[in-house]
Amino acid sequence: MRISADPSTDPAAYEFAHRLRVRFAETDAMGIVHHSRYLPMLEEARIAYLRHIDHPYSEIREDGIELNVLEAWCQYRKPLLFDDVVDVHTTMASIERASFQMAYLLTVEDEVRATGVTAHGAVTPAGRPTRLPTWMRDLT
Amino acid sequence: MRISADPSTDPAAYEFAHRLRVRFAETDAMGIVHHSRYLPMLEEARIAYLRHIDHPYSEIREDGIELNVLEAWCQYRKPLLFDDVVDVHTTMASIERASFQMAYLLTVEDEVRATGVTAHGAVTPAGRPTRLPTWMRDLT
Amino acid sequence: MRISADPSTDPAAYEFAHRLRVRFAETDAMGIVHHSRYLPMLEEARIAYLRHIDHPYSEIREDGIELNVLEAWCQYRKPLLFDDVVDVHTTMASIERASFQMAYLLTVEDEVRATGVTAHGAVTPAGRPTRLPTWMRDLT
Amino acid sequence: MRISADPSTDPAAYEFAHRLRVRFAETDAMGIVHHSRYLPMLEEARIAYLRHIDHPYSEIREDGIELNVLEAWCQYRKPLLFDDVVDVHTTMASIERASFQMAYLLTVEDEVRATGVTAHGAVTPAGRPTRLPTWMRDLT
Repeated sequence: MRISADPSTDPAAYEFAHRLRVRFAETDAMGIVHHSRYLPMLEEARIAYLRHIDHPYSEIREDGIELNVLEAWCQYRKPLLFDDVVDVHTTMASIERASFQMAYLLTVEDEVRATGVTAHGAVTPAGRPTRLPTWMRDLT
Repeated sequence: MRISADPSTDPAAYEFAHRLRVRFAETDAMGIVHHSRYLPMLEEARIAYLRHIDHPYSEIREDGIELNVLEAWCQYRKPLLFDDVVDVHTTMASIERASFQMAYLLTVEDEVRATGVTAHGAVTPAGRPTRLPTWMRDLT
Repeated sequence: MRISADPSTDPAAYEFAHRLRVRFAETDAMGIVHHSRYLPMLEEARIAYLRHIDHPYSEIREDGIELNVLEAWCQYRKPLLFDDVVDVHTTMASIERASFQMAYLLTVEDEVRATGVTAHGAVTPAGRPTRLPTWMRDLT
Repeated sequence: MRISADPSTDPAAYEFAHRLRVRFAETDAMGIVHHSRYLPMLEEARIAYLRHIDHPYSEIREDGIELNVLEAWCQYRKPLLFDDVVDVHTTMASIERASFQMAYLLTVEDEVRATGVTAHGAVTPAGRPTRLPTWMRDLT
């Protein structure tokens, strides 16, 4: 697999938005948010999205499915700063039998800061790939 | 820009290798290294590579150049686990006038675990894009 | 200096509470929140407290004062888990001429999970110790 | 329990030293290592100490014992900076039937930067407190 989604910079292209505030602990010595710290923000938005569509991640795990991260990609367009209030626009970008991709757009007061894509596969707790839950395949 | 490099899974394709050991603090509740924790490993390898070619990052910063991260991409093939001794194979993948891409291969006892690419731009401390240092453009 | 405050386990002893939700990225391979991840939660609550009393941290920094962390102490009583909604009860514990201590109580649905104390000193951007702002000394 | 150990600032008072290099990802917007990032350094040194005395942490876990962190305390005396090579001097400070304390001194080129103490309890994988392994109680 290789990430194919090309995330839009238009918030209207996204199903859901999750708001968070940048922590001081997320900044680095360049005075901006460290590039590795965007991925936990995408994850937080992804988990909020699943809760929003009534499939909280803890229930998915209780159903014996883990959602592995297969790939992650992020494009940093304008730095995030300490205390910025960030809207993480989030959408399902593509769904296959055993994997899916999600796209993200990060804005601060409607200004584009970053985009990202994550690709995920369903695995059993033992780590064996498995089909996505039916409700998820039905999202398309 | 969009990351174009396709990192090889053959360690021989890389100029340099940096060895590190997985910290317990880098694991998550799935029992594996959290996907966001690979990027600081790539960064540590990138900085060790620059030190290795006699251009330590602290000197680059003293010369008034910061190396921004423009994009980052990571493919997770097999999980990293606590206490794994990881070789981060590192190479310059492409060099433009004001940006460059680096490619990475992570192995544990010669087994492929992940690949990654990061794209960087040179900026002044004030954040304005600038040309790469001459020595860096001469690496090609 | 040595941290002296003994944080109460009674939420009523605290001036302010900040609510946050545990991120998956904050867990470790023991399935619980990693012990180092509590300090950014205390910091987030501290910053929310300062905002709450109309002295946002960004303004303090604009006034030329940084609040160094001199000491930090945390007692882990019952693990925090992924997705827990945590109330970080926060209070000023003591104020000296150039330093202060804050105390914290972390609860989940009123159950005590952890307590902590941080000690801070005021420094100039150059790192030289300086007196606390007047408004802060007046908090006592 | 309450941390009682008072860590020495003399490296000779410590059994073991672990060397590491500060990552850029560990710095914050004050240009120094974020205070929460010291705890993973202490943990890395603790795990290296256990490996050094031939009881690697992975073996302890395989023996069905987890070492919980009960308390952590850190005193920040002089900031750590990016690329600093840090010696984490490490010693067992006290050992009880079901818990122990370790003390740490962080130096850079023999200059004191920080001290710390962590207190630990032995628990079963199910989280129930249990006695320390015999070899550990015999360390006193």
